[in-house]
Amino acid sequence: MTKTAAIIGGGVIGGGWLARFLLNGWDVNLYDPDPEAARKITAVLANARRSLPMLYDVALPDEGKLTFCDTIEATVKNADWVQESVPERLDIKHKVFAEIERFVPATAIIGSSTSGFKPSELQEGLQRPEAVMVTHPFNPVYLLPLIEVVPTAKNSAETIERAKSILTLLGMFPLHVRKEIDAHIADRFLEAVWREGLWLIKDGIATTQEIDDAIRYGFGLRWAQMGLFETYRIAGGEAGMKHFIDQFGPCLQWPWTKLMDVPELTDELVDMIADQSDAQSGHLSIRELERLRDDNLVAMMRALKGQDSASGALINAHQAQIVPDITPDFSKPLQSIRRIIPVDWVDYNGHMNESRYGQVFSDAADYVMVALGADAAYIAAGLSYFTVDIDIKFLAETHAGQKITVLSQILQGEGKKLRLHHRMLAEDGTLLATGEQFLLHVSLKTRRTCDPAPKVLKNVEAAALAQSALPDPRQKRG
Amino acid sequence: MTKTAAIIGGGVIGGGWLARFLLNGWDVNLYDPDPEAARKITAVLANARRSLPMLYDVALPDEGKLTFCDTIEATVKNADWVQESVPERLDIKHKVFAEIERFVPATAIIGSSTSGFKPSELQEGLQRPEAVMVTHPFNPVYLLPLIEVVPTAKNSAETIERAKSILTLLGMFPLHVRKEIDAHIADRFLEAVWREGLWLIKDGIATTQEIDDAIRYGFGLRWAQMGLFETYRIAGGEAGMKHFIDQFGPCLQWPWTKLMDVPELTDELVDMIADQSDAQSGHLSIRELERLRDDNLVAMMRALKGQDSASGALINAHQAQIVPDITPDFSKPLQSIRRIIPVDWVDYNGHMNESRYGQVFSDAADYVMVALGADAAYIAAGLSYFTVDIDIKFLAETHAGQKITVLSQILQGEGKKLRLHHRMLAEDGTLLATGEQFLLHVSLKTRRTCDPAPKVLKNVEAAALAQSALPDPRQKRG
Repeated sequence: MTKTAAIIGGGVIGGGWLARFLLNGWDVNLYDPDPEAARKITAVLANARRSLPMLYDVALPDEGKLTFCDTIEATVKNADWVQESVPERLDIKHKVFAEIERFVPATAIIGSSTSGFKPSELQEGLQRPEAVMVTHPFNPVYLLPLIEVVPTAKNSAETIERAKSILTLLGMFPLHVRKEIDAHIADRFLEAVWREGLWLIKDGIATTQEIDDAIRYGFGLRWAQMGLFETYRIAGGEAGMKHFIDQFGPCLQWPWTKLMDVPELTDELVDMIADQSDAQSGHLSIRELERLRDDNLVAMMRALKGQDSASGALINAHQAQIVPDITPDFSKPLQSIRRIIPVDWVDYNGHMNESRYGQVFSDAADYVMVALGADAAYIAAGLSYFTVDIDIKFLAETHAGQKITVLSQILQGEGKKLRLHHRMLAEDGTLLATGEQFLLHVSLKTRRTCDPAPKVLKNVEAAALAQSALPDPRQKRG
Repeated sequence: MTKTAAIIGGGVIGGGWLARFLLNGWDVNLYDPDPEAARKITAVLANARRSLPMLYDVALPDEGKLTFCDTIEATVKNADWVQESVPERLDIKHKVFAEIERFVPATAIIGSSTSGFKPSELQEGLQRPEAVMVTHPFNPVYLLPLIEVVPTAKNSAETIERAKSILTLLGMFPLHVRKEIDAHIADRFLEAVWREGLWLIKDGIATTQEIDDAIRYGFGLRWAQMGLFETYRIAGGEAGMKHFIDQFGPCLQWPWTKLMDVPELTDELVDMIADQSDAQSGHLSIRELERLRDDNLVAMMRALKGQDSASGALINAHQAQIVPDITPDFSKPLQSIRRIIPVDWVDYNGHMNESRYGQVFSDAADYVMVALGADAAYIAAGLSYFTVDIDIKFLAETHAGQKITVLSQILQGEGKKLRLHHRMLAEDGTLLATGEQFLLHVSLKTRRTCDPAPKVLKNVEAAALAQSALPDPRQKRG
């Protein structure tokens, strides 16, 4: 049966919750007296509808029904989950909770998005405090999985487990915060960093841009896939977490930050950290952790490369400097690709996924296009080639880290028609795959076929003529 | 001409530098008196050789020559760049620098990997302090681009620019730290977070695992692609950075962290931050920043999904719960795919890259395999199907966010042979592409073809018989 979420407060956070429920097939009731609420929700929902389903390789459930309500009563009366995201003032929150618990079903869970208040503060004065806990999300709520679940002794184990299970079914990660504390866990780190950032700016050491670069080109990448302690466990090497603390612990006594109240590194504390780290990561050797870290970093940085953003934009700029600018020699097959197979191209069979052979031949065609004068500037001016047909023969397996080259031949180059043949070769000369590819020249404005610009057409015809003297590569497959 | 780097100290950091230079075509001389140096360097180099070239879609230059040297003199005498990564003791560093400057060419740049000392401290007592500056890297040095370049007034503008240009050519990002300060910039944040982490563990609030989860499932993902301030600029919404500070600034007065020396948020400081944020991100609207952030997050989280790690493992677990477990009906074409085209599948032509059609058909074949009983358990037991040949006809463009389905038919299922036909359809029924795919059953142990296990073979033959009653889909292309 379709479940119903009640969203109280429809700002950026409430809107993100709303989208998370709706796109996972829940019906959603929204209460927000702001006359701008519908406009704000529409904007958040547009972002969420575009991005959240993209995370998955299957379709999400059909969207639930969204209802704008005029009263808290109407919003919560049939709710399985109520999420409060009103402004961070305890008096407002208490008023809202009192109204919610008058009308909500007894089994509903009432979560608060508060980033600062403790759940015991929220529960004060309520009739049924056992229904209320902190469920603190992170922006954008429709994409980031972390939810800090902070209960008190008043919440039953059953209620806590039910809350965690619902959040997991929404694709979120409920982090059970076992002891309530101001700002929970994550925001304490954000506060510490924010304060340090303010000092650096105030003292004229760094600008906002420089601080952001210091984060996103360095430890930000590490923290997206491991956290602080698993990363440092690796830095400690074979000698482990204790070695790391021995090595860097003394730095805590140095005047590095303006924030100087520092816990003493007693044997007890060091042991506690080392034991927790063993429990967390002890099933993997340092070598295995390094490999995991590096594979994750490569995959994420390649993903950013595809977006030409952040560290990915740096790699693209560097790559452009590496590619040698060699005039193509059409009297021979063209060496269109020379590269290594990256880790993100491997599938569950332990070899390069078949679609990546298509990727290699697509990249090979890009090289041929550039060699014919249909380069980035040509494409930017509105002309390009689209592939119409490709026939790929898979002849041998290819693995991550393997060096490959591709030899490309022009089989046909007449008017808008371009027919290419690619041979993918291993370092030892083994033929790994062939691709016969038929492309048509198109206008990117009309999205229809058209003749190439005169200069490119001349290059295509001259190259096709020169290549026609070569043996037909289709004979080599035997 | 090949340039030469001199690496003084070959631990994890020195080894990372060594790999970065070597894999970018520099010759490298190493000095490290540790008898274990060769073993340690070999391990770092193995990691780097595996991962760094994977970042690029072209081959890196040929590796330079690595020479182990017995003296600092031999190491630095023909060096263009000297990188010092010896232990963090100023007396040791001074001794090493004195030895380096006796023998190094006058034009060489001498960088120090120190994370704590200021460059003016390093330069004390040297004959040519103008050659020495801090160039502080982040582990793993062979992958992370950030280098904090910290000079003093003794370094000429020309030397600083030359250093930055060399680092850029190594694929790194030189962050010019304009005012020297203990621990430079990034490590001040790491220190602040480390201290807060120690308090949380000491006070029994969170374990190392919980802290790492709080980071990698939340703000860690944000920081891998934007940083602190650009992220908060978005949180401020249309009202901008000042609004964000107004809203959250007061929290600085709250007793959230144990670290309490807080700068006062004067109008002057708020204006300084808002102006710097405008200079950094003002060319993009909040909507554009949101889109950039979301596209980056989707691409990175999908990359981690491919590795089944961190937040990507959460998405895989969630996805497994979404997929309905429906018994296939072989009397009809199979609906093998129903999904949305993600942003990381789009190329420079503004449409889905041709290789991703192959991805969709590869995924469609996976569905058919599962329907035939060749599922994850079957593959784990050492049997699978490999694609031998695919012929793809590209009939219409496909764009990010578009919903697609695939209808798959079994054309042939006899012994080890499986021939499939896939039709990719838009939501309105438009035929986007077809794929005719020939697969052979293989043993994953011998990597050779073999008959399927009896149960799967029986399924294949029954399904092929049932599907043979359907019209031949190859007739539909006209």
